[in-house]
Amino acid sequence: MGRVTFQPTGAVVEAKRGETLLALARNAGIAIASICGGDGICGRCRLIVERGEVRAPPTALLTREEIQAGYVLACQAEPVGDVEVRVPPEALAAAPLDQAAARFRALHPVVEEGPSFRHHPLVQKVYLELPPPTLQDNLADQERLFRELRRQLSAPILQMGLKVLQPLPRLLRRSGWKVTLTVGQRGGTTEVIQIEPGDRSAHNYGIAVDVGTSTVVAHLVDLVTSQTVDGEACYNSQAAFGAEVTRRILYAEREGPEALRQAIVEDINGLVAALVSRNGVELRDVTAVFCAGNTAMIHFLLGLDPSHVRKSPYVPAASEPSPVRAAEVGIKINPRGLLYTMPGIGGWVGGDITAGILATGLHRAKELTMLIDIGTNGEIVLGNKDWMIACSTSAGPAFEGSGVSCGMKAGPGAIERVEISSDGRVRVRTIGNGKPKGVCGSGLVDAAAELCRVGWVDRAGQLLPGASPHVREQNGLAEFVLVPAAHTATGKDIVITQRDIENLLRAKAAIYAGARILAASMGLSLADVERIFVAGGFGNYLDLKKAVHLGLIPDLPLDRIRFVGNTSLLGAKLALLSTEALAEAREIARRVTYFDLIAHPHYYEEFLAAKFIPHTDVGQFPSVSRALKGAWA
Amino acid sequence: MGRVTFQPTGAVVEAKRGETLLALARNAGIAIASICGGDGICGRCRLIVERGEVRAPPTALLTREEIQAGYVLACQAEPVGDVEVRVPPEALAAAPLDQAAARFRALHPVVEEGPSFRHHPLVQKVYLELPPPTLQDNLADQERLFRELRRQLSAPILQMGLKVLQPLPRLLRRSGWKVTLTVGQRGGTTEVIQIEPGDRSAHNYGIAVDVGTSTVVAHLVDLVTSQTVDGEACYNSQAAFGAEVTRRILYAEREGPEALRQAIVEDINGLVAALVSRNGVELRDVTAVFCAGNTAMIHFLLGLDPSHVRKSPYVPAASEPSPVRAAEVGIKINPRGLLYTMPGIGGWVGGDITAGILATGLHRAKELTMLIDIGTNGEIVLGNKDWMIACSTSAGPAFEGSGVSCGMKAGPGAIERVEISSDGRVRVRTIGNGKPKGVCGSGLVDAAAELCRVGWVDRAGQLLPGASPHVREQNGLAEFVLVPAAHTATGKDIVITQRDIENLLRAKAAIYAGARILAASMGLSLADVERIFVAGGFGNYLDLKKAVHLGLIPDLPLDRIRFVGNTSLLGAKLALLSTEALAEAREIARRVTYFDLIAHPHYYEEFLAAKFIPHTDVGQFPSVSRALKGAWA
Repeated sequence: MGRVTFQPTGAVVEAKRGETLLALARNAGIAIASICGGDGICGRCRLIVERGEVRAPPTALLTREEIQAGYVLACQAEPVGDVEVRVPPEALAAAPLDQAAARFRALHPVVEEGPSFRHHPLVQKVYLELPPPTLQDNLADQERLFRELRRQLSAPILQMGLKVLQPLPRLLRRSGWKVTLTVGQRGGTTEVIQIEPGDRSAHNYGIAVDVGTSTVVAHLVDLVTSQTVDGEACYNSQAAFGAEVTRRILYAEREGPEALRQAIVEDINGLVAALVSRNGVELRDVTAVFCAGNTAMIHFLLGLDPSHVRKSPYVPAASEPSPVRAAEVGIKINPRGLLYTMPGIGGWVGGDITAGILATGLHRAKELTMLIDIGTNGEIVLGNKDWMIACSTSAGPAFEGSGVSCGMKAGPGAIERVEISSDGRVRVRTIGNGKPKGVCGSGLVDAAAELCRVGWVDRAGQLLPGASPHVREQNGLAEFVLVPAAHTATGKDIVITQRDIENLLRAKAAIYAGARILAASMGLSLADVERIFVAGGFGNYLDLKKAVHLGLIPDLPLDRIRFVGNTSLLGAKLALLSTEALAEAREIARRVTYFDLIAHPHYYEEFLAAKFIPHTDVGQFPSVSRALKGAWA
Repeated sequence: MGRVTFQPTGAVVEAKRGETLLALARNAGIAIASICGGDGICGRCRLIVERGEVRAPPTALLTREEIQAGYVLACQAEPVGDVEVRVPPEALAAAPLDQAAARFRALHPVVEEGPSFRHHPLVQKVYLELPPPTLQDNLADQERLFRELRRQLSAPILQMGLKVLQPLPRLLRRSGWKVTLTVGQRGGTTEVIQIEPGDRSAHNYGIAVDVGTSTVVAHLVDLVTSQTVDGEACYNSQAAFGAEVTRRILYAEREGPEALRQAIVEDINGLVAALVSRNGVELRDVTAVFCAGNTAMIHFLLGLDPSHVRKSPYVPAASEPSPVRAAEVGIKINPRGLLYTMPGIGGWVGGDITAGILATGLHRAKELTMLIDIGTNGEIVLGNKDWMIACSTSAGPAFEGSGVSCGMKAGPGAIERVEISSDGRVRVRTIGNGKPKGVCGSGLVDAAAELCRVGWVDRAGQLLPGASPHVREQNGLAEFVLVPAAHTATGKDIVITQRDIENLLRAKAAIYAGARILAASMGLSLADVERIFVAGGFGNYLDLKKAVHLGLIPDLPLDRIRFVGNTSLLGAKLALLSTEALAEAREIARRVTYFDLIAHPHYYEEFLAAKFIPHTDVGQFPSVSRALKGAWA
């Protein structure tokens, strides 16, 4: 059918009839961004045809100008003969395969002191060689299978659906009584969800998902070896219904939750499809999906009515929904594969926080420990092995690079470090070290802290044009040029505007004020906290010192603060890999007390005070105070 | 739309647009025979339009002559204006409602000494009044429900599907936190299968079904009061694929089991529809169906491959299939209602026998006890509380009135008693005392024993024309005129032919020989048996003395033999009403040893010897021997 050459890498693949450029790019090891999973509706997979011809249906997602410039949707276009296409940087899903090492690094948010659990995946494959029946041993097929299965694993209550039982007699005899059972844990019972001929016990995968309000991150996990094979992320396309949880709930109340369910399910399907195709895994071998997310996200995912989550007394439809078949909500893995969700704590503190506690081991800690999970909502947990209390703050999506002029999620090309040297030169570092495409949360934190340190913004967060050639006014709005167009991957300036800084300060103030009030509610001050875990989708980097200087994190000695990455994802993975971990998560969810921050009389006052850098009361930040008196004088 | 008058009762009902005569007859309290559940394919529901006009599509099930005589299919015909229709006796499904008492009697096959179980239906309705959530008690809706439910019943593992969870928040609030939960036992777990607003706990029904090879009997059971509300029976329409189990399995091997599944499911649906409509029960309040049947029947019902049941070593696909949603196999009750099947013992000894053991308490007996279940297969169990052994014989459908010239199932109009007086007069009694329509199994047993006693057949079973005016030759075949046409409901002679008697003797010989061999296999003789239970679909009557005289049942003192009716149905009902009974049935099924009769070297020899009345070796029947020497001399 012809050869397709992908630029700029020059990768060449042979095209078969009916293969789209999206599939061919995957064959060439190039991961193209696609939210809709190839249905031609998200418009992310735009490539430029530079030579040759492609066949593609009309689409409203490309303008007349773009079509004239050669743009096509990769998921819709099929090559006719030899073709050369260019992959623009913004079309790359994540790191291309040759940057596997960089991506891989991001897959392992490690909590060194976190608890470990026995390897006991929620869905297992077990290979059995059965003795064929005789007149002396003429047990029925199902019971023969169960007898042998119970010799290999403990399963007091075994179940098998008709869909599995119906083909069983023929399957057993055709396979010579050698079969692989896929068995899933379903709340105290064990279900045989699939039977395959021969030994396929080495082919068993699960997907752990952090269903964030702004960002959805999925890891492909080998359930046999416990290894994380690969990761993929996308923005939550529910954003079309509102950037914040409340807006989406209001939409669901008006129009029903169906569109929101579809959006997140399509996001997850897109991530799964990318993960399996890139790694040569068969979809039928993906037998489980484990999702952690805030309560509203899990409600949307399961098609549950979220309206009462929003209103006092903030009551979810369910905190521990039973596992269901993934297909029942539209998630495309093995058709009988199971979907698990992390038990939630309450309306505004969801399973993502249960996951965070599980991953960090806060619930087993002797010391007074705080977990700050920074996302679109900032959730804070305070406690130890004896008690735990949690609250939620509305931070907005700034820390995930969303709602920010040049923001992007943590991924290749995202600016994650910013330094301003004493001679006023701005230096940045990107994830993967490529040309910058935008700035992610950790880059924003760095930038804001540095801007304040060098005096290009004041403590109230006002950019000061004239303080540096990097700070300019554009249409009456001050902005900081982080990287000029000449050095970016997009060919445009990467800037941080006055509004971006204000968003960031509101976000960090919401979180810090929450932490203060939460401690105070237990008669404690932040100085009593002995250990802080900072979690969030910052990729693999957050400069904790700068986060303290910004006033985002309480000012503890740095050796007592640890950045632990995406603990929602990590906790989901622990549970996916261990039934015992899931049981412990259930216990955690029941033990945590929800604290209603919004109703607290001093919260708004605390919030306003925390909007300064680092705070109106610098006394709360002794190390920053010392710095201000010294270098920052 | 007009009034419909049903003759001969004169019942009048108002017709609404779109209502068929079948539905209108139900409204009038008249149960019309229908196997296909109203799809116009079984042709059983023939009524005669005597006045007025009906609208009906063409059908191949009525001949030109029948159409001219006014015959219509009730399920297809809609009245146009006022109509008068006649219900011929053969169109009545069972007793009409004014014979409710007679039917009711047949509903209670009582085993007086049988075990009793705690009232704990497999599906229960539980009314809950929940405390509304507050900030202090803001448990999620599902968990609030579970908390309250656990205060009312023991349910270590609770599950709830998405279909129930999705509407929950709205339902709870609209009903003022007062709801009725329908909870079903699913093998060690408890599933909330439905939630209704308000208190509907008094409306909960189940259906117990004996899925026989020839006859299907269903009882409607009030799961709250444990009362049997009504019963209904029909022939198994799988007969179209073969009268015997083996023929049906061979059909399924060639063509797949789907047509057989459909046939039995439609039979059950027809019975359920008749039961609910006649008793004013809403279908949504039927929450469980419990089926007992032989292994092949249960395989067909569940769409399981039965081919290995037929061949040594006779291995079923499953002995204890998990409960499934009834809708999954096509049974029409509450859409989320559950279908249970009685655990089976082996390929040729199924759940119907487990049910029989459960109902008679054989498994708890101190005395050596035998259960003889007479149906299309005759199954025999021998044992006590310490051991049990069972075998199966191929009796054919004669005892169920099938495959017999004027045979019919036990129901109103069936001849169930026959006596021949010393002056050669034949007296019969029918079920319900109406005009005779045919002869059922117990009538056949009576007739054959009486014929032998008065010498109209010899001990080899040959009818002797000339012995009486009642015995004649027709087309070279001898036959016994039981009731002449003038006195029957059908207007035709009711006869028993030479061939009918031969079928009957083969059937009784198969069973008796099986009983002998089974006892011998344990080193015992039939004289060692201390107690015999005789079960079978004989309605509410079997003359045990005549059954002994025929040589069907071993010759024990009559006070040690008890007719216990349809124990398959009774056991199904016990399990439907008690989770503990089902657990005990599971234990029974595991304890019984299967004995392969067919492979036994002496079986055929024993069978031939038992084809005489009562037996070639009269010494095995001491009481008959004495009678022969006396009155029968």
